Formats: sequence, structure tokens, C-alpha cells
Amino acid sequence: MIDTLAFDADDTLWHNEHLFQDTQEKLAAIVRRYRPGEGLAEALYDVEMRNLALFGYGTKGFTLSMVEAAVDLTASRITAAEIHEIVGLGKAMMTAPVEMLEGVEEVLSHVAGRYRTILITKGDMVDQTSKIERSGLAGHFDQVEIVSRKDTATYRRVFERHAIEPSRALMIGNSMPSDILPVLELGGHAAHVPYAILWAHEAHDADPVSERFYRLESLKDLKPLLGRLHNGHS
Amino acid sequence: MIDTLAFDADDTLWHNEHLFQDTQEKLAAIVRRYRPGEGLAEALYDVEMRNLALFGYGTKGFTLSMVEAAVDLTASRITAAEIHEIVGLGKAMMTAPVEMLEGVEEVLSHVAGRYRTILITKGDMVDQTSKIERSGLAGHFDQVEIVSRKDTATYRRVFERHAIEPSRALMIGNSMPSDILPVLELGGHAAHVPYAILWAHEAHDADPVSERFYRLESLKDLKPLLGRLHNGHS
Repeated sequence: MIDTLAFDADDTLWHNEHLFQDTQEKLAAIVRRYRPGEGLAEALYDVEMRNLALFGYGTKGFTLSMVEAAVDLTASRITAAEIHEIVGLGKAMMTAPVEMLEGVEEVLSHVAGRYRTILITKGDMVDQTSKIERSGLAGHFDQVEIVSRKDTATYRRVFERHAIEPSRALMIGNSMPSDILPVLELGGHAAHVPYAILWAHEAHDADPVSERFYRLESLKDLKPLLGRLHNGHS
Repeated sequence: MIDTLAFDADDTLWHNEHLFQDTQEKLAAIVRRYRPGEGLAEALYDVEMRNLALFGYGTKGFTLSMVEAAVDLTASRITAAEIHEIVGLGKAMMTAPVEMLEGVEEVLSHVAGRYRTILITKGDMVDQTSKIERSGLAGHFDQVEIVSRKDTATYRRVFERHAIEPSRALMIGNSMPSDILPVLELGGHAAHVPYAILWAHEAHDADPVSERFYRLESLKDLKPLLGRLHNGHS
């Protein structure tokens, strides 16, 4: 029997990736003043990956990577004013309204009280704290955990800290490597809700083979899934 | 009776502020190619303070503020290559060796086992996690908490989470507003260990008036203080 629901946040409860994509297009428009647009996305991705260990996930690191990529791609011909514009793009991301995915409020209202709920989100603490505040969803959760990576060790630590028994917990999220696989590995249940845009870094092919894995079309399918699990057939 | 010791990290256990100061001098050398050096520190500080709510504390935000300040101060005449150099200064801070303050290892070895010990450090999660790893000190602490601000609400939450009774806890740190005053307010004990360099943002004048406040010349004075507290006279 499931008694605990753990939710991912970015691209599970609210839109996130599209902000990065939109910003990247604005960056491309600046860089194209100096060179053709091809290869920009790949170059930015390479810089981001190179910086990931140093910067971690989040908009500040992404902004620094945009600056580096723009300097590289324009062979240092980009102006200081344009770089300032790029820093401004990063800042705009940090204050952009948090847009909920469809059905989120309804689902969270349904499960509150019936299940223990925890938000487990990865990224920069300042970014995530600010997004949680802007989302107005904090009150729906019994616990909130902001973590710097989402691997098995992290989930084990979070579950232990809150005395969560993995076999009675269901994690819901859009990322196979971050939300699904580590939780299955710990003996937990995991439901994958795909997001329209898939970040290249997180591309993943086949579904995991596990009785404790569930595939949802959208978050609105969570309620029927919980019903089936409650009645013991799934 | 004190049973829990909480330690600040930056400029209490290891040097930190000097890294920012050194980097700022390198930034000044770049900016001076375009204008006289006066007013640079103030201008950078203004940009940092303006960005603090958005960026939080940490080297990524500091690096973005350096870029903005450099563009402003040179009236956008700074080159892309020089801005890249500034981003490089920020990255160098993120990988710089962590230099312990004098006596830290000895003091931590002395208190381990005798007291419950917790590290409470403010800042960017990636920065702080990396510094804790590089310091090699993690094993000296029963708990580690990385927080985004150090106010009364934060300490209350951390103390509650770990079932720490404030009146039996002593916080040791170099910052009056972050390490000392909020803990005193909660009814805890606090020992101030000054650091050679004081960040302008944290300048603070008089000692707080409290029986639970202690002034240490250096971390090496902690052992005698604990002896006095243990014997009930201080």
C-alpha cells in the first residue's frame, strides 16, 4: 500500500524547460549578428556540460555558460553591451512567472490529507526556493527537499530523514534518470509523466522493466492510478 | 550544560573572504585598463547588493555581478575576451584549495565525541558542498546543514529538525548578524570568533548584551571556554 507521494517540480508541476529554450532562442538571435545560427544549440550544450560539475544545475550557472558560449561562438567579437543583454536574459528567467502544468492544483488538492506528500526538487537552492514561493504550492506539501543531485544516495538520505519506507512510496516525475530509476532501485514505486520538451542531457529510451513502474500520460492520470493501487490490482 | 556545538564554516573554519578580495583586485586590474581604479570596490558592492535577492550568496552570483559591474564601469568598452577572463576568475574561485584557519583540526578533534557537532553554513549548495568535500572536515560533524540564509527562522527549523535544545547549544562563528544574534534570540549560546577581513555587508559595531554571548580571540580559545562552561562559571 502506498502512503507517501513524492513529486518532482520542474516540468512535472510547473513549466521550466521551455524557459531555457526560449532564452536560448534569444541568445541565438544575438549570436547570429556575428555568424550563422547553426551549431549554436550544440555549442551551448557543450559549454553547459563542461561547466555542470562546477556550477551545478540552475539559472546562474546557465547564464555564465551562455556568456562563455557567446564569447566563444563570436570569436570574442560580441560587445560588452550584448553580454550585458545576455546576463539580463538570465535574470529575466529568475523572475519569470511560474506557470503550472494542467491539472496540478486539482491533483495536489485531491492527494493532500489522503497521502503524505513531499516535494523533491533538484537545482540551485535560491532558484528553487524562489520558484516554490512563486508557485504558491508549498502549502500542499508536508515536506520540501531541495537537492543538488537526484541519485540513489540522495533519495536514500531523504527517505531516511523523513522515515519514508520506499516500498510504500511513489515518486512522480518527468525525468527517467532523476525521478524514476533511482527510486525503483531503492525498492520504491515510480510514475513517469512525460514533458513535451525533453532536455538533451536527459534523453532516455526504453521504459524500465519493473512492477513498480507506471507510465502516466499526464498528471491527471495519477488519481486513477492511485485508485488501482489502492484496490491492489495494477 | 552545553551538549551541542554548531559551527559556521566560511571564515570560521576555513578562509573564504580573502578569495573574494583577491579576485576583486584582479577585476580591478582589468577595469583600470579603461578608467582610474577609485570607486571600483563600491560599485561592485552596489551591484552585488542589488543582485543579492535574485542570486543569493555564492561564487556564481558574484561572478555575474563582476561581469555587470565591469560592463557598467567601463561604459561597455570592455572586450568580450576580458569578460571571459572575469568569468575565469569566478571559476578559479570555485576550484581554489580550501585553506583551514589555524587550530581547526585540533579543536574539531577535541570536541568530536564529547559534543554533538553540526556544521551550519550559508550559501550556494554546489559551492558549499564542494568546499566541505575539499576541506576533508565532513567526518568531524554529526550533521551538515547548508542554508540559503541564516536568520532566526532558519536556526529554529534546523534546531527542530535535529531535536537540538537551543539552551544547550553553542554556535561558533565569525559573523554577528548570521551566526550570533539569531541564535541568542532563540535562547541559545553563541561565541564570536572575529575574522581578519570583515565583509562590508556584515560590519557590525557593539557586542550584544547577553549572558549567553562569548567573545573568542581565535578558535583555539573554544576549548578553555567549554571547560569554563562545563564547570558552570562563565
